[in-house]
Amino acid sequence: MVEAVREPRQDRSRATRQRLLAAAVDCLAEVGWSGSTVSVVAEHAGVSRGAAQHHFPTRENLFTAAIEYVTEERLTHLRANLPNLPPGRDRTEFVVHTLGEMFTGKLFRAALQLWVAAASDEPLKAQVVPLEARVGRETHRLTLEALGVDESRPGIREAVQATLDMARGLGLANVLTDDTKRRRRVLTQWTAMLTTAITE
Amino acid sequence: MVEAVREPRQDRSRATRQRLLAAAVDCLAEVGWSGSTVSVVAEHAGVSRGAAQHHFPTRENLFTAAIEYVTEERLTHLRANLPNLPPGRDRTEFVVHTLGEMFTGKLFRAALQLWVAAASDEPLKAQVVPLEARVGRETHRLTLEALGVDESRPGIREAVQATLDMARGLGLANVLTDDTKRRRRVLTQWTAMLTTAITE
Repeated sequence: MVEAVREPRQDRSRATRQRLLAAAVDCLAEVGWSGSTVSVVAEHAGVSRGAAQHHFPTRENLFTAAIEYVTEERLTHLRANLPNLPPGRDRTEFVVHTLGEMFTGKLFRAALQLWVAAASDEPLKAQVVPLEARVGRETHRLTLEALGVDESRPGIREAVQATLDMARGLGLANVLTDDTKRRRRVLTQWTAMLTTAITE
Repeated sequence: MVEAVREPRQDRSRATRQRLLAAAVDCLAEVGWSGSTVSVVAEHAGVSRGAAQHHFPTRENLFTAAIEYVTEERLTHLRANLPNLPPGRDRTEFVVHTLGEMFTGKLFRAALQLWVAAASDEPLKAQVVPLEARVGRETHRLTLEALGVDESRPGIREAVQATLDMARGLGLANVLTDDTKRRRRVLTQWTAMLTTAITE
């Protein structure tokens, strides 16, 4: 009976926590790091300030957890979007365009706010760097797999890294203006160059 | 005689202004947008708060001028670093590596702080966007010239844009950790891919 009572309460608590984390990501993407206080996030989540502080006593607690949440979301999003097409130009095109779009979404904008805030905030940096390293490794591995390429061939590893660097740069180019049309043309050209590099 | 007295005073005033703008860029790169107040910048420049406020009555005045200063500095830096080598792989390599390094320096870090702050600050955004468009066009034009390529050939324009997007992405990858070794390998691979794309 104790379990039966506890379960729904734990579920509710977990749901509240998830709502706060999702709201933290929204706030980061929309109003930036300096505007994203615990109160602002609680209001956005429709959670009382007291409940928010019960889950996350400090701003650092909240955003550390949000970093992990962003990380998991980005990887889940990536896994769901990287396809199982037969190798070739169509698959390369799909992977390149998927990555290009991924780095322009809300998760990228939220992560960008954290990176930039962490650049001048050592405690935050200490938490962001290892998570970013993990996301970087996982994204690289998933991209290799999706492209169906063999990393032991010279230049392949760097060509895949260049793809991710370019996607990140395209994400940054989209922060202040809608860069969609230009981005699509660049990604199409990049598909051609990457296809040559991985099949030659 | 009036002119003779005025000149040095104007020079001093101009020098103070330049010191404040250079300090604004340093502060942006080092402590980020939210930490870069007029007082912090004045102290960094070794200028009294009163003198700083004489030149720049508001924080917005100071950073608007600093944006222009960063812009001019970035373009000057680019012009000085883009070489006059004969076309070919060596020149492509020089241009690619120069761009890659350019986007990892202090000016990039300062500009990044402005972009990210502008994402959730409409008045700042209204000032950053047209300047960024100008820098983007000028950087593209200089890169085309330095590579010695003809933009009217299909794909060339996009290959040059991809190069700049990748350089921007590499800059972002270097904000929290020293990415120099990986970046050099990626730029070398990129040189090979770009050489193929522009000479085929």
